[in-house]
Amino acid sequence: MSTLLAAPTKKPRTTMSKARKPTTSPPSRKTKTRRSKATAQTLAGQQREISVSEFFAKNRHLLGFDNPRKALLTTIKEAVDNAMDACEEGGILPDIFVQVLQLGETRFKVTVRDNGPGIVKQQIEHIFGKLLYGSKFHRLKMSRGQQGIGISAAGMYGLMTTGKPVLIISKPSKKKPAHEMRIKMDTSKNRAEVVSDEVHQEDDKLFPQGTGTQVEIELEGKYLKGRQSIDEYLEQTAIANPHAHITYVTPGNETRTFPRSVDELPDEPKEIKPHPKGIELGTLIQMLERTEAAKVGAFLQNDFCRVGPSKAKEICQTAGMTNMTWVKNVGHREAEALYKAIQEVKLTAPPTDCLVPIGSKALLAGLLKGVKAEFYTASTRPPAVYRGNPFQIEVGLAFGGELPAQETARVIRFANRVPLLYQQAECCSFKAVLDASWKNYELSQPKGSLPLGPLVVMIHMASVWVPFTSESKEAIADYDEIRKEMKLALQECGRKLGTYLRRRKRMQRESERRSIFERYIREVAKSCEKITGADAKKLYEALLRQAERRTAQADQQLDDEGRILNETARLAKDEQVVIVPAQQPDPANNGNEIGESLFENPPKPQRRKTTKRSRKKPRSPRRTAKRK
Amino acid sequence: MSTLLAAPTKKPRTTMSKARKPTTSPPSRKTKTRRSKATAQTLAGQQREISVSEFFAKNRHLLGFDNPRKALLTTIKEAVDNAMDACEEGGILPDIFVQVLQLGETRFKVTVRDNGPGIVKQQIEHIFGKLLYGSKFHRLKMSRGQQGIGISAAGMYGLMTTGKPVLIISKPSKKKPAHEMRIKMDTSKNRAEVVSDEVHQEDDKLFPQGTGTQVEIELEGKYLKGRQSIDEYLEQTAIANPHAHITYVTPGNETRTFPRSVDELPDEPKEIKPHPKGIELGTLIQMLERTEAAKVGAFLQNDFCRVGPSKAKEICQTAGMTNMTWVKNVGHREAEALYKAIQEVKLTAPPTDCLVPIGSKALLAGLLKGVKAEFYTASTRPPAVYRGNPFQIEVGLAFGGELPAQETARVIRFANRVPLLYQQAECCSFKAVLDASWKNYELSQPKGSLPLGPLVVMIHMASVWVPFTSESKEAIADYDEIRKEMKLALQECGRKLGTYLRRRKRMQRESERRSIFERYIREVAKSCEKITGADAKKLYEALLRQAERRTAQADQQLDDEGRILNETARLAKDEQVVIVPAQQPDPANNGNEIGESLFENPPKPQRRKTTKRSRKKPRSPRRTAKRK
Repeated sequence: MSTLLAAPTKKPRTTMSKARKPTTSPPSRKTKTRRSKATAQTLAGQQREISVSEFFAKNRHLLGFDNPRKALLTTIKEAVDNAMDACEEGGILPDIFVQVLQLGETRFKVTVRDNGPGIVKQQIEHIFGKLLYGSKFHRLKMSRGQQGIGISAAGMYGLMTTGKPVLIISKPSKKKPAHEMRIKMDTSKNRAEVVSDEVHQEDDKLFPQGTGTQVEIELEGKYLKGRQSIDEYLEQTAIANPHAHITYVTPGNETRTFPRSVDELPDEPKEIKPHPKGIELGTLIQMLERTEAAKVGAFLQNDFCRVGPSKAKEICQTAGMTNMTWVKNVGHREAEALYKAIQEVKLTAPPTDCLVPIGSKALLAGLLKGVKAEFYTASTRPPAVYRGNPFQIEVGLAFGGELPAQETARVIRFANRVPLLYQQAECCSFKAVLDASWKNYELSQPKGSLPLGPLVVMIHMASVWVPFTSESKEAIADYDEIRKEMKLALQECGRKLGTYLRRRKRMQRESERRSIFERYIREVAKSCEKITGADAKKLYEALLRQAERRTAQADQQLDDEGRILNETARLAKDEQVVIVPAQQPDPANNGNEIGESLFENPPKPQRRKTTKRSRKKPRSPRRTAKRK
Repeated sequence: MSTLLAAPTKKPRTTMSKARKPTTSPPSRKTKTRRSKATAQTLAGQQREISVSEFFAKNRHLLGFDNPRKALLTTIKEAVDNAMDACEEGGILPDIFVQVLQLGETRFKVTVRDNGPGIVKQQIEHIFGKLLYGSKFHRLKMSRGQQGIGISAAGMYGLMTTGKPVLIISKPSKKKPAHEMRIKMDTSKNRAEVVSDEVHQEDDKLFPQGTGTQVEIELEGKYLKGRQSIDEYLEQTAIANPHAHITYVTPGNETRTFPRSVDELPDEPKEIKPHPKGIELGTLIQMLERTEAAKVGAFLQNDFCRVGPSKAKEICQTAGMTNMTWVKNVGHREAEALYKAIQEVKLTAPPTDCLVPIGSKALLAGLLKGVKAEFYTASTRPPAVYRGNPFQIEVGLAFGGELPAQETARVIRFANRVPLLYQQAECCSFKAVLDASWKNYELSQPKGSLPLGPLVVMIHMASVWVPFTSESKEAIADYDEIRKEMKLALQECGRKLGTYLRRRKRMQRESERRSIFERYIREVAKSCEKITGADAKKLYEALLRQAERRTAQADQQLDDEGRILNETARLAKDEQVVIVPAQQPDPANNGNEIGESLFENPPKPQRRKTTKRSRKKPRSPRRTAKRK
């Protein structure tokens, strides 16, 4: 059997290694003699360092450049995210200009311009010509970019596919003219190569507000509309960033504008230090090696958040040292003791003013703008912590209206206000939506699938460090703490939706009853007149009043809900729910109540029968009446 | 509305940025004054380089260290993959020893030892103490490792979680003693820090064959059995590597051995040069900048595969230059011309002796070893090419037997003989299985899901460069060319399964008929005797012969198929299908044929009725007979 197993059965129709021998030959020894036997020395000769940009150039799908379509989107995404971050850090309301120019069938030129604070000349080559270089990685601060890869990767992709350098024009100061640079990345060294470096007075025209940056990248791409398109990305960006004004010139040379709907910047997220409970032993040891503090006490107070003098003392004592112990005397054993102490000592959770959620109102506004539904609700969770990193979850729901009733729900995902368009299945938020038991909220949900029905779910995670599943930042890694918060937020919204759907069902039943009732009152009145000679008109009115009283719920409850509001008033009330009168047959209502009786108290079977028949032949009610 | 949108509705129960002002204040200007307004200069001050190991330390989930359980598996995976590669490169049949020692509730020590060629002292610190360092990245050669990240990342994770350095013992030469090193990674520099470096004579005992390497990593982990466990990884590794002998000592201190079932190494995969059609313009330009060749002709012949003198000439001419053109005179325009020329000129596909598939036989053997099924088939596709990289797809199917009939199929994935246990949903192979229309092969398949039934699908991709979706190498990126090949292989196997299932249905129907027939022959014979006085015994035998002839298919076809084989003979024939007699009721057969008649030609309804009744009351047949 063994010899038989050795060779592939069906010899691929191609030349195989010449060294190949018929499998009947005595095995192992032959094997050894016939192949180039590498030794430790020969292997050592082949060992080489790999530059990080070589690595990502070969693995560029990790950065979101899997295919031409995605590459085009990613390039714009990275440029726009940077532009927004820059503006906000500069305290400037973002004014973003995006242009996609089609040069050839598969060749595009992407231009993104902002009115941010600009970039000083010396930094440009590093920021755009070097992977893993940036201002955000080493800080714990909520921002869109965090890795220092994005924009330089886009430039690298452009260079690889077209050989063209990146063009950067930046004006960091109102007084000085803009400078213009062409930059190429040398992937073997992960270093920038400056192709040209000039000052053009006329470039200043690009920046009417005095400062700003423009990036121009030429790349192989593919332009498509629909899901996961540039358009969708910009629409969703506008939803999550109502304070930004975005102008988009499409390859078809149409201009789309997403106007600013808030004239105020979101609060500035604060930068924080790591929380002691969030770090691991190894990291602690590293921090001890690198700290500027000389004494352990100082180290704990300076390098961490939420550690004051008293807490520092407490930790040191629990670890069997004093806060005057010299850091350089802390060996591995002491470090472990310190680590254990940190776990034991009670510490306040990390500060959360480092988080700036979009806010339920903005979420609702966004959904109202973007989705034609009937019921809207949103909820913002209080901040929580994963691995010492504060984060905050927000969820918005939109139901009914013009949303497709037969499809599964649609999930719209955001991380630090950036739309996530790819790898949904891998995303923690998606899994959270699967987890939430939607059956409790009057929605059907096939096992292991999204709920069915006219539903849009919007999830936002704000954090000082979003744990993405890949450098392309398309999906949020599945941490228990994060998924839990997402589920809680979804449930908050789900419950409201459930209540609404149940109430709506009741209301529909009621109005069903009323309409059926009204259909026959006149008949009944007439017949009574014929029989008893009572005044039909009076009788009719009496019955009608009855009917209205009986089925009062139908409208009364809607008034309770009190939320048939006109466009402008919608957000006036500080509520997290918005209801728009349904325009179309309700998909959630299976309408099986129609056959029910006209009266409050459960009818006798025979009575029901007649009503049933009655719907078929309108004349029957008289008979029913007679029988009375 | 705008002001309303600015602030989150529900103020999180936590301190918010002190700078916060009531939203009634006049917007933008106030915003600006109240926040630390960053300028280009201040921003520049924050820009910093990020070391690749800092990056991956913070994003270690990208490397497969998301959680303690996965971390433990990944560590073993990386170590074993390296060990196997080393042995094969050294032309040595792998003898791998794996031990997982539990030190504390969540602390483990992983030891992996091989009998490979060993590592020279100077290389150890780089290989284990530096990310992005290795011998495989810059070569186009089929191997398990390819990025130079894996094992050093495992060491880094160990260091981060336990503060303990990695221990490496290696013996690169039979003559010299083994050397022992302790290594720590300095993530801020992505450089190794040698903690200790000694020579212990007694270490030699670890390497009876004279050479080898042992790695010891202490880390925070979690040990669980079942799916995605170390055990599953090693089982599948054994299936795909019948030439390896693996010994595994579990945390429970049991020893599991996976013996070698082939005494011959797989053919040695050849290293190849990039194929001209596989590279992009930018890459071509880079290669031109870096080539050692002086003339374009030489450049094309030396730096690429499949370009001989004549082809080189042809390309140069098409590009409007000669193969004597100096490389240094090739500017951007010339490069583009050259690139276009390459696309136009016909070139043979890249060589494929760089690929060493497992082979259908080995696949079948593996499945037979690992899965208790009833029907087995496998197929190996001829090599194909994606982005200039040759690759080859193999598929194996196992159906029926003891496999769970009510669940969806199980997919077992391999890349270059390494089992892939995570991120199934993202994997090209998984998508290919979804794509294949299993309904054609007699299996039910809910929309967008795996086929239902007792089915195991095994997919292997062999390539000089497997495009993984992440550094953790858990899923294959979704290239059209790859998915297509996978679908074709699946279909080849699917068709065989379909034929088998259809034939089996027919056979069952036949034996149904026979058994029903036989049930009544005696009765019929007797009654005939009573009526006509014919000899019952004779009649009975005659009828019996008839019955057997009529329903001959039942056994005859099985004999045609001729594949009821005993364990040893199973693989004797060079076939890609193996059938084991079913032990249990067939799940694919819905058994609705039972009610059918006893005879070839469709029966009259009344006759069928009687047969139906007859099954209830055994005495009825006589009546039927009488009526005749």
